[in-house]
Amino acid sequence: MLSFRTAGPDDWTAIWSIMEPVVRGGETYCWDTGMDEPSARAEWLPGATGADPTLVVFVAADPSTGAILGTAQLHANRGGNGAHVANASFLVADEAAGRGVGRALAGHVLGEAVRSGYTAMQFNAVVETNTRAVALWSSLGFAIVGTVPGAFRHPALGATGLHIMHRFLDPVS
Amino acid sequence: MLSFRTAGPDDWTAIWSIMEPVVRGGETYCWDTGMDEPSARAEWLPGATGADPTLVVFVAADPSTGAILGTAQLHANRGGNGAHVANASFLVADEAAGRGVGRALAGHVLGEAVRSGYTAMQFNAVVETNTRAVALWSSLGFAIVGTVPGAFRHPALGATGLHIMHRFLDPVS
Repeated sequence: MLSFRTAGPDDWTAIWSIMEPVVRGGETYCWDTGMDEPSARAEWLPGATGADPTLVVFVAADPSTGAILGTAQLHANRGGNGAHVANASFLVADEAAGRGVGRALAGHVLGEAVRSGYTAMQFNAVVETNTRAVALWSSLGFAIVGTVPGAFRHPALGATGLHIMHRFLDPVS
Repeated sequence: MLSFRTAGPDDWTAIWSIMEPVVRGGETYCWDTGMDEPSARAEWLPGATGADPTLVVFVAADPSTGAILGTAQLHANRGGNGAHVANASFLVADEAAGRGVGRALAGHVLGEAVRSGYTAMQFNAVVETNTRAVALWSSLGFAIVGTVPGAFRHPALGATGLHIMHRFLDPVS
């Protein structure tokens, strides 16, 4: 079991400990691998100058220890007449890999997206070689809308594609 | 014939006169139709707090009158290991429609993208009903990688798709 809540400033240290290896590895996100901590914080947490005002961040915690095992962003994928489609990003702690944290957190975020009135969710850049993520999103009803060829330079695997994935969200009944 | 140059702060009044009807119309960009002028300036011109540091903006001018007939943004579509793919956005003055300004400006921007070292260009959200734009990009070698269904609420036509379009760029020989 996990508990989910909105992230606050006090969660940053734990989030950064999850995020930093992902940044440095450069295998799954289009982030500068040398990104420093203040930039990462501005990238992930709401409230930075110029940040997306629709952004909400969640954390998944182990209820017995309080340890943060994962975090997710939810925000509008576009503005104006495209603002009904959500976008989300997910990070899971290395030590929690394979325990279903990503799937559970995704379920929470999909529910929050519905409650926020979004009618679909779109991922813009799922690295094609990140087969674990692709399988997870597929199992949660996301379809690969298209793949931009060679749009990601994987540090170990070279040029690979970026999937655009999408699913509609059922309204709250 | 048109002349092309990098936009400066003094060009903003002319750019805004082109941009404002596009913003208000809400038919081709995912911008809030009520966007005010300072927000639009921050959206289009480089230098705003939190703005993309890779952003460059061009204007196309009538060389005889100096009138600005169009403008374009060029920047990295993503960061980190996705920063080799460019993204661009284009605006053409209503009074210059049908005179090839968009095509000529696109040619200039594609050349600038190559000179900047980008190896491909991607559009993330080409409104499916904007058949003129889709035809222009297709004629310039862009392929529709995929279409996100219903991702745009066209004010007159209702729910429509957003195309992701892409082409590779030939390196400077």
